[in-house]
Amino acid sequence: MRFDWIALDADDTLWHTEYLYAQAQQGFVDLLLPYHPAEWIKERLYKTEIENLQHFGYGIKAFALSMVETAIELSEGRVSGAELRPLIERAREMLNAEIQFLDGVQETLEVLAARYPLMLITKGDSFEQGGKIRRSGVSTFFRQVEIVSDKDSPTYRGLFRKHAVRPERFLMAGNSLRSDILPILELGASAVYIPYHTTWLHEVADLPPAGRPGFYRLERLSALPALLEQLEAG
Amino acid sequence: MRFDWIALDADDTLWHTEYLYAQAQQGFVDLLLPYHPAEWIKERLYKTEIENLQHFGYGIKAFALSMVETAIELSEGRVSGAELRPLIERAREMLNAEIQFLDGVQETLEVLAARYPLMLITKGDSFEQGGKIRRSGVSTFFRQVEIVSDKDSPTYRGLFRKHAVRPERFLMAGNSLRSDILPILELGASAVYIPYHTTWLHEVADLPPAGRPGFYRLERLSALPALLEQLEAG
Repeated sequence: MRFDWIALDADDTLWHTEYLYAQAQQGFVDLLLPYHPAEWIKERLYKTEIENLQHFGYGIKAFALSMVETAIELSEGRVSGAELRPLIERAREMLNAEIQFLDGVQETLEVLAARYPLMLITKGDSFEQGGKIRRSGVSTFFRQVEIVSDKDSPTYRGLFRKHAVRPERFLMAGNSLRSDILPILELGASAVYIPYHTTWLHEVADLPPAGRPGFYRLERLSALPALLEQLEAG
Repeated sequence: MRFDWIALDADDTLWHTEYLYAQAQQGFVDLLLPYHPAEWIKERLYKTEIENLQHFGYGIKAFALSMVETAIELSEGRVSGAELRPLIERAREMLNAEIQFLDGVQETLEVLAARYPLMLITKGDSFEQGGKIRRSGVSTFFRQVEIVSDKDSPTYRGLFRKHAVRPERFLMAGNSLRSDILPILELGASAVYIPYHTTWLHEVADLPPAGRPGFYRLERLSALPALLEQLEAG
């Protein structure tokens, strides 16, 4: 076998996630339209989110606090508790939203898990991500589950050390160039980019140069077993 | 040696934590005193926190969202964004508060780490707890660091399995009867209760019966090395 581990991202790779944030953001824009134009509201929310990352980390609770804070700022303190209430309710709904798998994910996990040890590597709030993993039922397919605060190359290097991984025998697939692909390639492992139709601005990054060794691109996760067969044969 | 692992809790065992919540709660009560008496405000905040545990988990972000939500409820939506702003600012301050060790902790960790493998077991938001552990610099003393969502006996059983721990060779010290002591005793390991001067209502539990095997009580962490010497000798 060419790979000792196949690692997968979770949000927007196994299950839909970004739509929850997009819906919440739409509600947020509607709330503040009396005060400002939509583009400005979105820009300021994004700015608050990014500034708060260092304090709050990733995830829905951080997002909810950033929405409340931005609403207060953009209304110059005039927004009322009654207007803010739906933002908190929305956070609770997001946290309890039913898992919606991308097409063919469960069948693909079954095929992959029969051939390789699988590792789930997801970024964010561990309570929130742990809850989704539990509710999704995918734990049975994964030999290891890692919930990390950030997906940068020091984090992946730490995981490689922890699991005694040789980078050239490690392949990661995910939808974020910034988090799932570039740091993996930097460490000399293989990466499969499976774009999702929307990407949070913070996760946007440039594609690696064409022909970069170890870099692959697929339209969907269900194409991964066939790619791995090719690579094993090749 | 009688023990293979000595495990320690972090919040209010290694460093002061509860005072941050108490101060924030005082600010919250002051904000809502125009609407309600102090005792009622505290009672409702606690009720919201407990209801939100299942959605938000433990930690400062969850606490901040519960404060905002309770303020909205108790003011019947009339509280303004300007009044709520300090709650968000307070959360950010709490998250960045300087680590304040309890007396003698660092010296005690040094002594303990020279004799035993130490495990830090702390409950809560992993981003928040991970940040405190990093800023505190105590990682050098601990062979293992475990940040868990809850400290109940299934969680500890999982940790025992993960680290191949035999309960009779494991001792845990901490300030919460509910989280650090009772589940540990239930699994047949030893537990050292080191009370802190205040305890969050949610963590309050009855003392184990007098003479319960494996249960010890100390006034401060700095007395732990001497207790361990006694137990090793005994």
